[in-house]
Parts: sequence; C-alpha cells; structure tokens
Amino acid sequence: MIRSRNDYAMNFSLDKSIEILSSTPYLLETWLKGLGDEWVTKNEGPETWSPYDVVGHLIHGEKTDWIPRMQIILSDKADKTFEPFDRFAQFTESKGKTLKELIAEFKTLRQKNIQVLLSKNITSEMLDKEGRHPSLGKVTLRQLLSTWVVHDLEHIAQISRVMAKQYENQVGPWSEYLPILKKR
Amino acid sequence: MIRSRNDYAMNFSLDKSIEILSSTPYLLETWLKGLGDEWVTKNEGPETWSPYDVVGHLIHGEKTDWIPRMQIILSDKADKTFEPFDRFAQFTESKGKTLKELIAEFKTLRQKNIQVLLSKNITSEMLDKEGRHPSLGKVTLRQLLSTWVVHDLEHIAQISRVMAKQYENQVGPWSEYLPILKKR
Repeated sequence: MIRSRNDYAMNFSLDKSIEILSSTPYLLETWLKGLGDEWVTKNEGPETWSPYDVVGHLIHGEKTDWIPRMQIILSDKADKTFEPFDRFAQFTESKGKTLKELIAEFKTLRQKNIQVLLSKNITSEMLDKEGRHPSLGKVTLRQLLSTWVVHDLEHIAQISRVMAKQYENQVGPWSEYLPILKKR
Repeated sequence: MIRSRNDYAMNFSLDKSIEILSSTPYLLETWLKGLGDEWVTKNEGPETWSPYDVVGHLIHGEKTDWIPRMQIILSDKADKTFEPFDRFAQFTESKGKTLKELIAEFKTLRQKNIQVLLSKNITSEMLDKEGRHPSLGKVTLRQLLSTWVVHDLEHIAQISRVMAKQYENQVGPWSEYLPILKKR
C-alpha cells in the first residue's frame, strides 16, 4: 500500500499559516454561495450554530480576537491580559445581513489582518513573546497564530458537520459508515 | 439571543443534493490550490489519509460507487447487489498524479455524474427503488443519493481535521478549546 506520508505534525511557519488563513474566505465563498437557505441557516439543534452563525463568529474574531491580541503581545504594556472573547456577538452583529454580505465582510477583514500581520516582520524572537489569556494564562504569539489557523479549520469542519446532519434521517443504514453524523 | 433557526433535519430534495454535490470540487480547488505540500500530503498517523489521499478516494467513488449503484437500482436486473467499494484504490490510482490533476479529474467526473443523474428525471417513485448493499442489505435510491451528499461533507470535515492536526503541538493551552484536535 502506498501512502503519501506516514508522519504528521508540522513546525510552526508564518508562511504556511498565512496559506490557510488566506484561503478560508475564498473557500467559504465558493462553497456556500450556491447553497439554498436550508443548508446555511439550519443548525444541529438548540444552542448550536448554523453555517450563517459561524461566519458571523469568524468576523467577530477578525475584529476583536487575533490581531488585537497580537498587538497586546507585541506592545510594551505592563499588563498583557487579553479582553475576553464574546462567543455570542454574532447573534446581534449579523442581524439583517445576508450570508453573502457576511462572507464579503469576512474576506475584507481577513485580508486587512493578514496585511497587518505581514507588516510586523515577525521574527522567531517575537513569536516567543507572551500575553495573558483571561482563562488559559500565559500564551505565546506562536500559539496565538497557530490557534488562529486551527480555529479556521475547526469551523470549516463544523460547517460541514452541521450541513451533513440535515440529512441525518435520509441515509438509512449508511449512517453506520458516516461518523460525522454522530459527532458534536 | 437571536438564532437563525432552532430546528434541523431537512427532507430529501434532489435539487438541494445537487447544490452540495456540485460545489464540492470547486471548494476543494479553491481551498487546496494555494496550500503547500506539507498541508496536503501529511496525515494523522499510520493508517490514516492525507487530503491528497481523500481526493483520490472521492475520484474512485465517482467511478465505481454512486452512479454505478444508481444504475443498478434503476435497472431491471433480478439481482441488484452492488459491487463492494474499494476503500484503498486511491493508493495505486493516484500514483504519480499531482493534487491539481486529481482535483481536475474529480471535477470532470463529478460534473459528468451530475449530468447522468439529471438525465434520469428522478421521480419520488424512483427514489423508493431498492438495491442491495453487500454489507448493509436493502437500501433505497433516496438513501444512496443522500449518502453521496453526506459522504462529501464527511470528507471535507476530514481534510479540515487532518490539516488542523499538523498544528496540534503548536497551539499550547488553546488545545482545550479546539475539539477538532481530539477527534478521529
């Protein structure tokens, strides 16, 4: 059997991180633009998010999470504690906006944030600098930027899962072969 | 708190199924074309698949699974048992091909298959027709087509998870907030 690779786990790289970060808005645009409302506005049940909600959450992250926290880490402030992140902001902020508008907004914010990131000329010394997460304590810039990347991938997987579950009752005995239908 | 919807689970619809089925190759192209080899060729450890492997698997499905099985269900054959699906075919079939070539091949096959599907003028009576899965037993055309859709979403989530895990050791204490890193 031929496998492409048997190992996994990469070292952090700013370039590789930006590859993922720049692709996410385009992926969401390509994927979701042709899908009807049922696919993008339904969720997994009470207290869960639809793909529409997820895009709003990603927008709020661009505004208040990744780059603002990077700025705190790289600042000369004595207290480098981050503001807590509001996980429910999208339920008011997305109000009245179409998914297309949200994706366009996310794309603009993300492109701007990548420019800010690049403008810092991040060195490996800078990646070791620390801030304080309100619940998790000490974190480095390297960990913050890695989390930004993984957070995109987490939510892409979530959107996929939420849409898959809309057909949960349609697949019959095949549900056994589709672990995504059992996940949360 | 404003939620987009509180319920979930859609009824089967051929149009809605085709929305997802047609978007998948474009999504993969947009997402993966700008990513370096490390993102797309690494897997989750022994006996797991890389994004590159997954695209090969999707190609094999287009060739031997969904449409051929639909043809069996809609045929007049007495024995409507499907051929077993080879889950490892991509390890030989993808050999020597670039990811770009695989995605282009997948796109062509998928478009062709959607045309075949549309050409059948599927009625709800036809959706109730049955075939026999070699392990699962009796299945309907509706279940087969629903599974085709969910199978795409399953593998999109998988690609996302496999790439997320490349940064598993980079996110530090944030791993607690990233359930994707714990999933299989």
